[in-house]
Amino acid sequence: MKKIIGILGGMGPAATVDAMEKIIKNTPANSDQEHIPVIAVSFPDIPDRTTSIIAGGESPLNHMLAALRILEAAGAQCIIMPCNTAHYWYEELKASTKTNFLNMIDITCNKIVNEGINNVAILATTGTIKAGIYQNKLEKENVKCVIPDEFQQGFVMESILAYKSGDDERAYQLMGNVIVQLKNTGVEKFIMGCTEIPIILKREGNMDRYIDATEELVRSAVEWGCSDENG
Amino acid sequence: MKKIIGILGGMGPAATVDAMEKIIKNTPANSDQEHIPVIAVSFPDIPDRTTSIIAGGESPLNHMLAALRILEAAGAQCIIMPCNTAHYWYEELKASTKTNFLNMIDITCNKIVNEGINNVAILATTGTIKAGIYQNKLEKENVKCVIPDEFQQGFVMESILAYKSGDDERAYQLMGNVIVQLKNTGVEKFIMGCTEIPIILKREGNMDRYIDATEELVRSAVEWGCSDENG
Repeated sequence: MKKIIGILGGMGPAATVDAMEKIIKNTPANSDQEHIPVIAVSFPDIPDRTTSIIAGGESPLNHMLAALRILEAAGAQCIIMPCNTAHYWYEELKASTKTNFLNMIDITCNKIVNEGINNVAILATTGTIKAGIYQNKLEKENVKCVIPDEFQQGFVMESILAYKSGDDERAYQLMGNVIVQLKNTGVEKFIMGCTEIPIILKREGNMDRYIDATEELVRSAVEWGCSDENG
Repeated sequence: MKKIIGILGGMGPAATVDAMEKIIKNTPANSDQEHIPVIAVSFPDIPDRTTSIIAGGESPLNHMLAALRILEAAGAQCIIMPCNTAHYWYEELKASTKTNFLNMIDITCNKIVNEGINNVAILATTGTIKAGIYQNKLEKENVKCVIPDEFQQGFVMESILAYKSGDDERAYQLMGNVIVQLKNTGVEKFIMGCTEIPIILKREGNMDRYIDATEELVRSAVEWGCSDENG
């Protein structure tokens, strides 16, 4: 059998499904049998990541470690975690496992640097923004990070929570308004730095302005899955 | 934590994703944490089910048993297998486990009988048709089963294989032609009795004529997941 991708998922469940769909779309295959094997642990009752970061709520780390142990036992050979905010705990997760564990933030930042992009707006949860998950890496590379102001960030977070509660339409309207405002300030590109955002914006026609962190992570995982050297 | 649904998947990988998406859509939830935990084992290199049934190709049973063992070890409490043709081996799988294992075919047939539907066309793989997986159950309940003729069945199977090879457009055209022909013979309802078919036909507006076996299976699983009694 081919090498197995393990998905530490459920943050949220729709983002896990989006990542799995993107694995299929990015794999060159002419039949079922040519696709990459995947094990997904999608346990959505992990404590909220943003609440933990900004308000000292219960840490999700133990729940994430438990999911990681299930993936290891099941035979996963490369772990991906399609949740940007959860990467706040990446180093602790990575240190606990011998399994290859791709870093979504590093992969996305490398793409931005390699493409010579000079300024990006970060669309992400308030947890990801406050923790500086993207800014810390990008500013070291002299990429200017545009952060939504407090009101705009409130709408971004409200949009993400609206999507998670099943209100796709409201999620789209809220996010769309913030994007229009930021575009007017001359932003070059937008990082969709929360795994719900590519799903919220799915109906947009032209995605050239956006960098989809889930897509970048998945491309790296598929490249790993289709290669023979890294087994 | 809530009770865990285990998906014995990968047959094909897109059908697994479709089932996971339908679990989310059918779960009443206002936040990530209210969704049902899912473990999906999506190992697509399981030998082709139709080839095994109609041409004596390698049996997929051992591969399916291995996936089932992973789901049990990972803590799944209710198994679903979103592949109609794979239910040819359902009794052997079921006999090998103490875990609750829902039967997609029984659930779909019960829906048809309970709704008083008198005649249905079966859209499915040639393996599912030749093995009589739906006809055996429905004819006992006096539901008339309309089976595509040999040429039409050839197109249905070609459509499913086209979808699995990534050619969505050709898959839709081939399936659409057979459906138009069968509608003209007075068919009341169509069973989408292969888990790729609801994805192939996703662009159709009105789905009233169709019974989606994946959707019926998922509804039963969500009902189980949201209940306290069957844990």
